[in-house]
Amino acid sequence: MGEGVVKLMRRDADAIALRLGAPLELAGVADRSLKPVPSLGIPARLITRDPAALVVRPDIDIVVELFGGIEPARTLILSALSAGKDVVTANKAMLAEHGTELFAAAGRAGLSIGFEASVGGGVPIIRTLRDALAGDRQHAVYGIVNGTCNTILSMMSERGAEFSDALAEAQRIGLAEANPALDIGGHDAAHKLCLLVALAFGAVLKPSQVYTEGIEAVTQSDIAYARELGYAIKLLAIAKSENGAIEARVHPTMVPARHLLAGVSGAFNAIYIQSEALGSTMYIGLGAGQMPTATAVMADILEIARDRAIGNRGHALGYPIPSVRRARVKPMDDVISEYYLRFEARDNPGVLGTIASMLGQSGISIASVIQQGRGVETSVPVIMRTHEARERDLKRALARIARLNTVSGTPNFIRIEEKL
Amino acid sequence: MGEGVVKLMRRDADAIALRLGAPLELAGVADRSLKPVPSLGIPARLITRDPAALVVRPDIDIVVELFGGIEPARTLILSALSAGKDVVTANKAMLAEHGTELFAAAGRAGLSIGFEASVGGGVPIIRTLRDALAGDRQHAVYGIVNGTCNTILSMMSERGAEFSDALAEAQRIGLAEANPALDIGGHDAAHKLCLLVALAFGAVLKPSQVYTEGIEAVTQSDIAYARELGYAIKLLAIAKSENGAIEARVHPTMVPARHLLAGVSGAFNAIYIQSEALGSTMYIGLGAGQMPTATAVMADILEIARDRAIGNRGHALGYPIPSVRRARVKPMDDVISEYYLRFEARDNPGVLGTIASMLGQSGISIASVIQQGRGVETSVPVIMRTHEARERDLKRALARIARLNTVSGTPNFIRIEEKL
Repeated sequence: MGEGVVKLMRRDADAIALRLGAPLELAGVADRSLKPVPSLGIPARLITRDPAALVVRPDIDIVVELFGGIEPARTLILSALSAGKDVVTANKAMLAEHGTELFAAAGRAGLSIGFEASVGGGVPIIRTLRDALAGDRQHAVYGIVNGTCNTILSMMSERGAEFSDALAEAQRIGLAEANPALDIGGHDAAHKLCLLVALAFGAVLKPSQVYTEGIEAVTQSDIAYARELGYAIKLLAIAKSENGAIEARVHPTMVPARHLLAGVSGAFNAIYIQSEALGSTMYIGLGAGQMPTATAVMADILEIARDRAIGNRGHALGYPIPSVRRARVKPMDDVISEYYLRFEARDNPGVLGTIASMLGQSGISIASVIQQGRGVETSVPVIMRTHEARERDLKRALARIARLNTVSGTPNFIRIEEKL
Repeated sequence: MGEGVVKLMRRDADAIALRLGAPLELAGVADRSLKPVPSLGIPARLITRDPAALVVRPDIDIVVELFGGIEPARTLILSALSAGKDVVTANKAMLAEHGTELFAAAGRAGLSIGFEASVGGGVPIIRTLRDALAGDRQHAVYGIVNGTCNTILSMMSERGAEFSDALAEAQRIGLAEANPALDIGGHDAAHKLCLLVALAFGAVLKPSQVYTEGIEAVTQSDIAYARELGYAIKLLAIAKSENGAIEARVHPTMVPARHLLAGVSGAFNAIYIQSEALGSTMYIGLGAGQMPTATAVMADILEIARDRAIGNRGHALGYPIPSVRRARVKPMDDVISEYYLRFEARDNPGVLGTIASMLGQSGISIASVIQQGRGVETSVPVIMRTHEARERDLKRALARIARLNTVSGTPNFIRIEEKL
């Protein structure tokens, strides 16, 4: 990403200088490898092995942190802010864990922390929530914010691949990491959701407060049944605010096939927001990649540089400092959703009725059923779509159903967002 | 729209005061009717019949112009700027004609003109181009920016209505004006395109320099044939920048049915942008309506108020002052596009060949043909999709074809944007 930022600074150096009234100069680089991409030709005198000294150097105005991870990034940023530097970072994990501390420090000093690149890559969702939607109240945020998961799910949907094959293919073409756990487990999306919640609802929550489920358990047959029922499966980061309680969750979700979110495929990210006065808006673009993400870093650098050039103070860029508060998070058991259910039933004519009545006893009513296979199989899939039910009730019913002799394995369920 | 802004200011008065460190107060209202909506209960002492006196009153910081039209809006804004007020306006027609003058005045005074509400209603496209995409170069902008046209085309597509019936229905439900010429003729979209061009390409052009064609000539059969060919018809505002020349045009356009733009229906607006480093991004939301548009006005007010509260200067909010330049506009005759063509051919077996060879003589090659009807009709439609051709060549060929005895009426054509 640093390489992309240097390329953009150079490409538009003249235009930037014209706009700012002064050139934007690369003052130093602390590269952990001590070997920034040779083709960039960064002069050796700009490269240092001492980032702690670099971020407090008196001739530097803006510190761009692209190390990733919690430390030393957090300490370096605090140190830069103490020395009066504005900061730009793409570090969602660190901001999700330590945002309150960092933005408070920036706010006290009248400095900015730009973090547009931390969510949605090149999709300008941070400044949209901070500025454009600032005059409204947000009700819900739905994000496709992890390009790796979206790519894998798109491969499964478009080519009929199973999860493991799609993951292997995504790794082969460089769209998934060798260790993909952070992405496919939903944790990266949960970090991003914390930042979206802070901006959309003015509430601070930790990644550990976000219910997080990855895409590992999604099967090809789930995708095929979803299609038959009129849905696409996406890993969604969902946050809702209702009566002062925040719902925040990341999990595979069925969205209506006709909804614009269903059409966002591959490496694209999208954030769909429901606001009180504005209604629904949606923002789509590439969520990763050196150059798309570098444009987000550059946008922050330019905004800060423009303010510095005319002597303006920073504004801590929208993080909810004045109203910072711990959120009351709705327990996952209290979340209400519609559900897709998949059972493997021993082919016993009575099993459908048994399942339906057990669901009914938990207050869950069935909206539709797909039951296939009437041949010689020892088990057949039974697919159901429920009306709205409370997660606690569903889980209790599924636990009872799992104990039936006529049902094999663990029932699978995927939440449906019908009212997007 | 003024009513919506007052509602939003009141709804969030406490939260706004907390964020700004001072309350945001409605200091006066110049309503042309002198009777602002009674239910708002605006005190009579705030209402004036003298806008010229109001906009220079010493106790006022921000002037919000929602009169529309060129005058007196332009004079009032210049007067407000001279008196040191920041300005917020939704007036696209005035900005498209007089933006250079107004933004230059604001820039000299270190004041802001916020105009988020002028394009896309509640879609934050102005600040996205100004801030988020500022670190990149834009290649092309495609906008569905007129909700009336999009509603009419959606009705034609979804219900099989003809244009005149869909227009009448849109007027009945209040989605089209009694005099709809500004909307359906594409002129409103052309005004908005001028603002998008200024922000995306740093180039100033007048509405008269935008090739503008409305949706009046789109027929139900065009929509049906488009669907058969895999396209949807949208009124697009298109701007492209290539080698220093700007292409700017508004006309009915066929877009691939699988493209996200094709799924944007009814009153929704969408702006799709192709940028050099960032790639494609898209922004979708309600393009009109009292409350959605009011959120855009409020976003501008809050940004300016936040800057005023901490003593920051305005930045003329992104209009291309430093690099302001007259654009070199590519003549429409030089534009290259693919085309959908519809001829009414007397049912003569040779006519298809004659048309094809006349197109071929102008260097236009045919990508596909639909020819229906082999019965007793006196004329049958011949539908063709061409490969890329230059507008000048196409028009020349169509003029020749129109003179054929075997073709009745005027050939119809719709431009196709295949490479979105």
